[in-house]
Amino acid sequence: MSQLRLLLALPVLLALGFSARADEGMWPFDLVPTAQIQKKYGFAISDAWLEHVQKSSVRFNSGGSGSLVSANGLVMTNHHVGSGMLEKMSTPGNNLIEKGFYAKTRADEVPCPDLEVNILWSIEDVTARVNGAVQPGMDDAAAGKARREIMSTIESESKDKTGLRSDVVTLYQGGRYSLYCYKAYQDVRLVMAPEKGIAFFGGDPDNFEYPRFDLDMCFFRIYENGKPLQAEHFLAWSKNGTTDNELVFVSGHPGRTERLFTVEHLKFLRDVAYPLQMRNQWRREVQLATFRGRSPENARIAEGEYFGVQNSRKARTGILEGLQDERMFAKKQEAERKLRDAVAASPEYKAQWGDAWDEIAAAEKTYATFFERMNAPGVGNGSLGGLYGTARGLLRIAAEDPKENSQRLREYTNARRDSLLQQLFSPAPVYPELEIDRLASGLQLMTEMLGADDPAVVQALGGLPPRLRAEQLIHGTKLGDVAERKRLYDGKQAAIDASKDPLIALAKAFDAENRAQRKRFEDEVDSKERAGYAKIAQAQFAIYGNSLYPDATFTLRLSYGTIKGYQQDGQQIPPFTNFAGLYQRSEERHNQYPFELPPRWAGARDMLNPNTPFNFVSTCDIIGGNSGSPTINKAGEVVGLIFDGNIQSLVLDIAYEDEVARAVSVDTRAILEALRKIYDCQAMADEIEGKRKG
Amino acid sequence: MSQLRLLLALPVLLALGFSARADEGMWPFDLVPTAQIQKKYGFAISDAWLEHVQKSSVRFNSGGSGSLVSANGLVMTNHHVGSGMLEKMSTPGNNLIEKGFYAKTRADEVPCPDLEVNILWSIEDVTARVNGAVQPGMDDAAAGKARREIMSTIESESKDKTGLRSDVVTLYQGGRYSLYCYKAYQDVRLVMAPEKGIAFFGGDPDNFEYPRFDLDMCFFRIYENGKPLQAEHFLAWSKNGTTDNELVFVSGHPGRTERLFTVEHLKFLRDVAYPLQMRNQWRREVQLATFRGRSPENARIAEGEYFGVQNSRKARTGILEGLQDERMFAKKQEAERKLRDAVAASPEYKAQWGDAWDEIAAAEKTYATFFERMNAPGVGNGSLGGLYGTARGLLRIAAEDPKENSQRLREYTNARRDSLLQQLFSPAPVYPELEIDRLASGLQLMTEMLGADDPAVVQALGGLPPRLRAEQLIHGTKLGDVAERKRLYDGKQAAIDASKDPLIALAKAFDAENRAQRKRFEDEVDSKERAGYAKIAQAQFAIYGNSLYPDATFTLRLSYGTIKGYQQDGQQIPPFTNFAGLYQRSEERHNQYPFELPPRWAGARDMLNPNTPFNFVSTCDIIGGNSGSPTINKAGEVVGLIFDGNIQSLVLDIAYEDEVARAVSVDTRAILEALRKIYDCQAMADEIEGKRKG
Repeated sequence: MSQLRLLLALPVLLALGFSARADEGMWPFDLVPTAQIQKKYGFAISDAWLEHVQKSSVRFNSGGSGSLVSANGLVMTNHHVGSGMLEKMSTPGNNLIEKGFYAKTRADEVPCPDLEVNILWSIEDVTARVNGAVQPGMDDAAAGKARREIMSTIESESKDKTGLRSDVVTLYQGGRYSLYCYKAYQDVRLVMAPEKGIAFFGGDPDNFEYPRFDLDMCFFRIYENGKPLQAEHFLAWSKNGTTDNELVFVSGHPGRTERLFTVEHLKFLRDVAYPLQMRNQWRREVQLATFRGRSPENARIAEGEYFGVQNSRKARTGILEGLQDERMFAKKQEAERKLRDAVAASPEYKAQWGDAWDEIAAAEKTYATFFERMNAPGVGNGSLGGLYGTARGLLRIAAEDPKENSQRLREYTNARRDSLLQQLFSPAPVYPELEIDRLASGLQLMTEMLGADDPAVVQALGGLPPRLRAEQLIHGTKLGDVAERKRLYDGKQAAIDASKDPLIALAKAFDAENRAQRKRFEDEVDSKERAGYAKIAQAQFAIYGNSLYPDATFTLRLSYGTIKGYQQDGQQIPPFTNFAGLYQRSEERHNQYPFELPPRWAGARDMLNPNTPFNFVSTCDIIGGNSGSPTINKAGEVVGLIFDGNIQSLVLDIAYEDEVARAVSVDTRAILEALRKIYDCQAMADEIEGKRKG
Repeated sequence: MSQLRLLLALPVLLALGFSARADEGMWPFDLVPTAQIQKKYGFAISDAWLEHVQKSSVRFNSGGSGSLVSANGLVMTNHHVGSGMLEKMSTPGNNLIEKGFYAKTRADEVPCPDLEVNILWSIEDVTARVNGAVQPGMDDAAAGKARREIMSTIESESKDKTGLRSDVVTLYQGGRYSLYCYKAYQDVRLVMAPEKGIAFFGGDPDNFEYPRFDLDMCFFRIYENGKPLQAEHFLAWSKNGTTDNELVFVSGHPGRTERLFTVEHLKFLRDVAYPLQMRNQWRREVQLATFRGRSPENARIAEGEYFGVQNSRKARTGILEGLQDERMFAKKQEAERKLRDAVAASPEYKAQWGDAWDEIAAAEKTYATFFERMNAPGVGNGSLGGLYGTARGLLRIAAEDPKENSQRLREYTNARRDSLLQQLFSPAPVYPELEIDRLASGLQLMTEMLGADDPAVVQALGGLPPRLRAEQLIHGTKLGDVAERKRLYDGKQAAIDASKDPLIALAKAFDAENRAQRKRFEDEVDSKERAGYAKIAQAQFAIYGNSLYPDATFTLRLSYGTIKGYQQDGQQIPPFTNFAGLYQRSEERHNQYPFELPPRWAGARDMLNPNTPFNFVSTCDIIGGNSGSPTINKAGEVVGLIFDGNIQSLVLDIAYEDEVARAVSVDTRAILEALRKIYDCQAMADEIEGKRKG
C-alpha cells in the first residue's frame, strides 16, 4: 500500500506535460537540453560526449536496452532482457535460466537463435518531407495514408543508400518525424548470465519495490563477420562507482509514455483501453500459472512469458491507479486549459490549432465503439499464439510482396525485411503444449468477447470447444518446422493458395476482417490523432518554445538526474543497498521462494564484502524499455545498470515527478565483485575493467 | 488437455435435461425414484432408510455438506469445508491450516466463531399455497412479489410453530415450492483436522484431477445445550469399505446446476454471465496471489479466500468450456425442440405453456442490458469486502425491521434472523490489510466497469484513487468491533442515521441504486423466469411424467451410482488409488509444493499399509456443494467422503453424463488408518468405529 499512501505526498507541481522541469525528460539525442543541464549542474555536454554515449548504447529488439562495455563488442543488459534468449537456448536437461551460464572462452559463447541488436548511428529530421506528401484538400485519412507511404519510401531509400536499418519515427504523436539509422547486428552470442534466483531475487512480490537486492545482469557479445565487433565506442567501467547526489545519465530506449495525451485521450485509456487490456492480462496470468503448475517442464518453457505478463500487470496496475486519481486529472485539465486559452487568445493560433483537442476527442469516441472487437484475437489484435502469428505473417508476406513497396503494410516493407525474416525463420524451439495453451486461450477469449454465435467464432471453432479446436490445429500444423516456413515463403502466393495447413486456413478466415479493422483504425483514429497532435505540438512549440520532449517511442533517449533516496511511509529510504542487506532479506523471508538464494550465493556470504553497494536509485526519468540501460557518470563511464523503477515511478507513464519516483540500478561495483568472487569470470571481469585486450 | 480430448468420446446420449437416465439425478428426498433404483439394482429403498440417511446428513451453511458419524454428534466433512473455520480460529503463531488440529478430550474441542449446521427434518409441498397467492390479472412482476410475500409468511409461521429453521425452496426454477424445516445448530466445535498439505495434496494443479491422493477430511462436533448432541440418527462406519462396481449413494447439498435451463438461457450464461463473472475472478485470483506474496502473514490470512477463488475459477472454466461446445448445444436444442413440438401438438398445452420459452428468452435479453451494472460492486452485487457487507447489513436491517415481515427483503425476515445475527456478530478476526485489499479491489473494479466519471464512482472515491480511498475507509470504520455492530443494531434507524461511520456512509450512498437494481431484476427477470419455468415444468410433468428431478438448490439430495473407473487418453483409470500412489506422486514432483508431504506423512511411509485404498471414484451425480457428503452403501453405512469431481465432471453443471464424469471420495479405510497410525487419534477412531460410547 505504501506506493499509494505516498502519492498523497506528491507536490502540487506534478509535471504538466508541456514543459520540462526539474530533471524531467527522455530526450532524443538531437534535442538534449544541454543549456538547461549546464545551468543546473555546471556540466557542459559536448557533441563528442553525446556521440560517444549514443554509439555505446544498444537496443535489444526483443524489447530492452543495453550498452557496449568493451572494445570487443561485449554488451551488458539485464537478465530479464536476455532471459527470452536464455529460455530459447535451454533444454529440459540444461535450464540456463535456473543455473546461469558463463562462456570461459570466446569459443564457448553461444549464438542466439533470433536476436537483433541495433546501435543508433544517425538522426535526421524528415518532418518537412513527410508532411510535404500531404496534398491540399486531403482529408485526415488520405493524409495518413500519404504519410505512411512517404515514410516507407524514405526508409527504403535510406536503407538502399546506407545499408543501415532505417526507421522513420513519429515523435510528439505526429508533431515531428525523424529518420533513425541503425547499425543492426543479428550475430549476437551469450557470454554470461547469473541464476534467475539472484537476478530476480524477490520475484513478483519485490518487483517494482525498493530497497532491492537483484543482480539483474546478462552479457552478450556482438559479432561481425564471425568475429567480435571491434567497437568504435564503448563505455569504460568506472573505477570508483557512483555516490549520493552525483549527477548521472541514463541512455536507453524507453518504450512508451502518454504524457502529451489530451485529457479526453487519457480518459479513453482510463475507462476503455486499460480496463480491457488488464482484464485480458489477469486472465492470461492465471492461465499461465496453471499451465506451469502441471509439470516442471511446463514451468520451464513458460517461465519467460509468465514473467512478462506479471511484470506488465504490475506496471499497468500502477499506471491505471494513476489514471484513476482525480488529482492527477485535475492537473492535466489545468495544463490543457492553459494551453487552449493561449491558443484561443490568438486568432491566428485559434484558426490553425484550435480544433485539435476536439478532433482527438472525437477520434477516441469513435475508437471506443470498436476497440473491443479490434482487440479480440483473430478478427483483431489479440494473440492466438506464436505459430498462428507465423501463419499470418506468411499469408501477409505473400499478399503484400507483389505490391509496390510504399503501398505495403508497413511491417512488410523492404527496409524491415531482414528483421522480419530473422523472426520468421527462427530456429528457436516451438513447444506444442504451450502453443495449444496460447491458441486455446485466444480462441476462448475471442468466444467470450464476441459471443459463441458470432460468425467469426463459429468459423474459428469449427464445431469444437476452444481447447479441443486448439489441439486439433496445433497437432495439424507443420509451421513448427522452419523448412516448411521457408517453403511457403519461397513459394509465394501460389504456395499459400495451395497450402492445406490449418493455421494458414485460420489466418485466411480472419484476414479480411482483420485488415478492415486495421484500415478503420488507421483512417478513423490514427490519422485523426496524428493531425490533432501535430497541431498541439505546433501550438506548444509556438507558446512554450523548444523545452518539450516527445513521448517515448522505443527510440534512444537521454535522461539525467541524481543519486537520491526518498521518503516512504514516513521513513527515509537510503539510495544504496548492499550485499549484507541481501542476506538479511533472504533470512526475513525464511529463504523461501522467491527469496531463496541460489546455492553459489547461499555459501558465499563470507567471501563477499558486506558493504559493497548492490542496488541504487536515482531521479533519472525512465520507463519500461529502459531495462538494461547504462547509468553513466559525467566522464561517460558506466556506474550502474538500470533494471527497474520503484512502484512510485509507474505513474511516470502519464506524468513526471521526482519526489518519490526512482529509477533502480545494479551498482557496477556489485557486478564486478560477483563476477570475480561468485562466478569466477576473471577473463570477462578483466575485459570490462580494460585489463585485457582482444 | 485430457479432459477435453475425452469429451469427444462422449456418447450421443448426453442427458437432455428432461428425463433421468442411467444413474442420473440429484433427487430431493421426497422424490427419490425408488422404483427405478429397484428395477436396475434390485435394491428396495425403504422409508426408514431414507429417513435414516436424511437425518444423518448435515448442511454446513458456510457452503458444504457433511454427515453425523457417531451417536455423540461427531460430524465428518471435508477439510476444504472446515478450512474457513480453521482459518478464523488460527493466529499468526498457531496456524491450524498448516499444522492441523486434534482435540484429545471433549474439553479440548474448540467452539467455532460463526458456523451454523442444519439437519433436514421435514419436507412439505407448498406449491399450491404459494401459487394461490397469485391473483388473476396480476402481471409477472406482481405475481413474483405476491409469491415472495407468501413464502416469507409460510416460513415465519412454520418457524413460530415448530421452532425449526424454515425455508421455502423454489424447485424446477418455479415449477414447485417446498417447505424445508431444519434443526439448526450454532454450537459446533472443532475436533480434528489434518494438515492442509495432505488434505489438499497436489493443490490447484491436481484439483479436479484424478488419480488423486487427498485426505480431505475434517471433524466437528455438534453441541446442544452445552453437551454433545445425542444424535437420533448417524451413519455407522463400514467395516469393509466399498469395492469396484458396488452400488453407492451420496447424500448431500449440491449447490446449483443449470440442467433445466432453456437454450436461450444457456446462451445468456455462455455469452454474458460467465464471461463477466470469470473475468472478475481471474482478476481477484491474481490480486490475492500478490497480496499473499507480500508476507507470510498475508499468505496465512488470505489462504482460504485464495483457495475459494482458484477452485471456483477451475470449476467455472470447465462449465464454460462445456457451454462453448457446439455439440452440447445441439443436444440441448434437440431436446427443447422435442418438448416444444409436443406442447405445440396439443392446443390445450400450447395455450397454457406455449409461450414459456420466448418469455424466458425475453427476460434474458432484458437482463443482458443491465447485467454488467447489476454485477458491479457498490451499485450492484459485486463485493466491496466483509466490513462493507456488515455496514450494508446494518443499514438494511434498520430499514427493513419496521416493515411487516412479509414486506421485507427476504434475507431480513424473522425466520432468517438467527443465522443473520450469528454472522453479523461473529467474533471471527477482521484483518484490516485484507479488508483494504478487498475494498480497493472492489472500488477499482467498479471504476473500471462504470468508468471513473460515473456519478456513483465519483461519489464512492471521494477524490482519491481506489486503494487510497480503501485505506481511508477501513482505517476510519469501527465496524471491526463487534460491540459497535451491536450498538448500531440495537440503536435501530436512529443509530444508523446518527452514525458517522464511513462504511455506513458508503452503503447509504449506494443503497437507492442497489435496491432499484434488485427490484428491476426481480420484476423484469426473476418473476418472468419463474413464470416461464413453471410452465415448462408443468409441460414436462404432463408429457414425460414424474421422472424429472429439479436443478440443484443447496438443499438435500440423494444421488446414486456405482464405483467405476473410466477411460482417459486411451488409458483405463482404475477406481481406487492407495497410499503407495501418494508417495510415488510426491516423488514424481520432487516433493515440491504443492506436492510436498507434511513431516508426519513423509516419515510414516513404513508405518502405513501401501495397499490401503485412499481415494476412489463413483458415477454418483454430484456438483459443488456436495463437498463433505458421505458416500453410503446399501446398509446405510458410510464408505467414503466426497471431496471432488474429476475435471470431466464439471460439465455436470449443465448436463449429466456418466461415461467419464466421476465423483471423487476419500476412502473411509484411509481415514481410519490415518487417524490411528499418523495422528494417534485413538479416541476418535474408537468413536466412529462404535467402540466407544458417550
